[in-house]
Amino acid sequence: MLTISHRGQQMPASPIRKLVPYAEAAKKKGVRVYHLNIGQPDIETPKPILDAVRNFDFKVLEYSHSAGNESYRKKLVKYYEKVGIDISYQQIIVTTGGSEAILFGFMSCLDAGDEVIIPEPFYANYNGFAVAADVVVKPIPSHIENGFALPPIEEFEKAITPKTKGIVICNPNNPTGYLYSKEEMERLKKIITKHNLYLFSDEAYREFCYDGKHFSAMELTDVEDHVILMDTISKRYSACGGRIGALVTRNKQVYDTVIKFAQARLSPPSFAQILAEAAVDLPDNYFDTTKAEYQRRRDVLVKRLNAMPGVFCPNPGGAFYAMAQLPVDDTDDFCQWLLESFSHKNQTVMLAPASGFYGTKGSGKNEVRLAYVLNVEDLNKAMDCLEVALKEYKTLEKKPLYVEETN
Amino acid sequence: MLTISHRGQQMPASPIRKLVPYAEAAKKKGVRVYHLNIGQPDIETPKPILDAVRNFDFKVLEYSHSAGNESYRKKLVKYYEKVGIDISYQQIIVTTGGSEAILFGFMSCLDAGDEVIIPEPFYANYNGFAVAADVVVKPIPSHIENGFALPPIEEFEKAITPKTKGIVICNPNNPTGYLYSKEEMERLKKIITKHNLYLFSDEAYREFCYDGKHFSAMELTDVEDHVILMDTISKRYSACGGRIGALVTRNKQVYDTVIKFAQARLSPPSFAQILAEAAVDLPDNYFDTTKAEYQRRRDVLVKRLNAMPGVFCPNPGGAFYAMAQLPVDDTDDFCQWLLESFSHKNQTVMLAPASGFYGTKGSGKNEVRLAYVLNVEDLNKAMDCLEVALKEYKTLEKKPLYVEETN
Repeated sequence: MLTISHRGQQMPASPIRKLVPYAEAAKKKGVRVYHLNIGQPDIETPKPILDAVRNFDFKVLEYSHSAGNESYRKKLVKYYEKVGIDISYQQIIVTTGGSEAILFGFMSCLDAGDEVIIPEPFYANYNGFAVAADVVVKPIPSHIENGFALPPIEEFEKAITPKTKGIVICNPNNPTGYLYSKEEMERLKKIITKHNLYLFSDEAYREFCYDGKHFSAMELTDVEDHVILMDTISKRYSACGGRIGALVTRNKQVYDTVIKFAQARLSPPSFAQILAEAAVDLPDNYFDTTKAEYQRRRDVLVKRLNAMPGVFCPNPGGAFYAMAQLPVDDTDDFCQWLLESFSHKNQTVMLAPASGFYGTKGSGKNEVRLAYVLNVEDLNKAMDCLEVALKEYKTLEKKPLYVEETN
Repeated sequence: MLTISHRGQQMPASPIRKLVPYAEAAKKKGVRVYHLNIGQPDIETPKPILDAVRNFDFKVLEYSHSAGNESYRKKLVKYYEKVGIDISYQQIIVTTGGSEAILFGFMSCLDAGDEVIIPEPFYANYNGFAVAADVVVKPIPSHIENGFALPPIEEFEKAITPKTKGIVICNPNNPTGYLYSKEEMERLKKIITKHNLYLFSDEAYREFCYDGKHFSAMELTDVEDHVILMDTISKRYSACGGRIGALVTRNKQVYDTVIKFAQARLSPPSFAQILAEAAVDLPDNYFDTTKAEYQRRRDVLVKRLNAMPGVFCPNPGGAFYAMAQLPVDDTDDFCQWLLESFSHKNQTVMLAPASGFYGTKGSGKNEVRLAYVLNVEDLNKAMDCLEVALKEYKTLEKKPLYVEETN
């Protein structure tokens, strides 16, 4: 018989997308669904950078350099300079989204069976890239009580084995919104130095920090060879569909290896490189408006959530996600119920059950991730729905769900 | 010490790009270099499809569906219908270039240590994707004498082991230009049925067949579950930089597995999907001009090559490549010499040494691949260079290259 590969079988289906059929069914019934489940911002892509694409003047849509257009990489150097990261364009490989940067990083540094430690909850697709690269994810717990701060050194040390080759962080974090402090980053430095590990740092949400300054892993000194930055323009400029990211490292050997993977797939997309290059020239205050908008939404969301009985939502310092603990036993069931059986004024809300963000089975059962990618008005309506839903669900849970057979 | 992964070490550097520094040095000296080394067509991308991108009207550059926009996939069904392939849009996954289709196909169907048989010479980047997926490539020889026809069944059977899971073909072929006949495809069908193998069929050059009709692996009957089509718009519409390809299969299990890999990387590029969708609406005669142009070039190239003493070039039936045997011992050296030490009227030619297209070490040492991606005038000038160069190189080879030490 023709067989599917083991890795293909292990490959997790997207935990966020599994509820999609229920959302589609709700919409077919005429129910309006507020999508707080995915990280697709509603913020408009800046017009000048869309115009840059509209105004291209080449006649042949050629392959670009495998590492990305040199002109774009040189521009990126300036961007990184502005955010306090000093690198040269020969330390940047433009990738097809941040996704490819993660895959290339894993493929180049890790072998089958090697382990990476990731504080959980974490971005679910790390699992996918780990399966593709046949790498083992070792989750260590972070906790909602302290806002999902970096786990203590002992937790890392407990998880380290001879097969451990790296630590993966996302800063500010998806799904928790937690922003690692400089002190926490220095703690990570100690661990990677002592145990000789790579630090894969996903900084997709760098621009969106509300209660502190972002401290990049690339700013750590004396660990130049350890740090692999995985970056993307997707969230920065609301340009998710462009599929432009970057892998940045000062480790020459890693760079030379990644470039071989990049050559095999020929080049990153050309059109979106034009957009990305133009984006570096956006005025310095471009992010101010976007950031202020996200912060306003965060404040509304967190306040509304914490005002609901039994709900706890720590204040996220960055990104556009919040994790909340709900007074329900199983958010997978609850989120499905929200779409399948609930509506309030003919509206409902779609949330991401947190279970998909945990590597440890059974963790996060009463948590959800909320992406505040809707305007304040819609966010409030979504929170109205959630508030009513929690009350209704509570009375439901007390009812017997089935009648036991009597004979 | 921080280490590079074994697969990273095994990952081959692009055999075509290793001569690039010599070409750059030649250009710096003011020598004009005719590039017959890479498959980057000079044909203009059709204006209407570039205009489709110029005229987009969305405001947020969003993720598309992980399988590609539904509207594009539905259009693609019509395209495939025109070329005699009957499929539904739920059997298509839009990929980031043909490259990603190859990677996803390997990842989903093959495990570490599994083997695929590929007639050599073959597209060098199959090696890269095989290393990424930890799959073993088993080359079987095809020969310049018969124009690189499909090896006989016995050659396949000799190479089959319990670990063999698939056969990879490229039709029409890169690098040989060979167009597999229907009879040869039926032969492949027998092998994959008898030994229960996947057939990965790379049909990137489908539109460019000069001496016969293309017969797709998707047209084979009763092997629906075996066939994985790996496709791309790169060459079809001279749109290499768009990075839009497709994996097409009627095997539901494979499809459902590939979609999980597709979800992990979120979506294929958005801008180029607009271009690709518009391309399906190009008039049916669009390919006539392009094909006639390539055929004219092929005819010139093959005639010029075979007129040179000691050179043999079989007539390629498709794609835009030709393989030629040269009267030199080592085309790696010769191609480097062409760039480093030779010029004719201040011009030279860049060719791809064939060694990079062979999996068997030592094979193809006296062969080169020529991509006829330049207009006839430039092609003729490139052939002038090659003709003069071969004469000059011959006299060189007879000279002692170093003086033996006498004591």
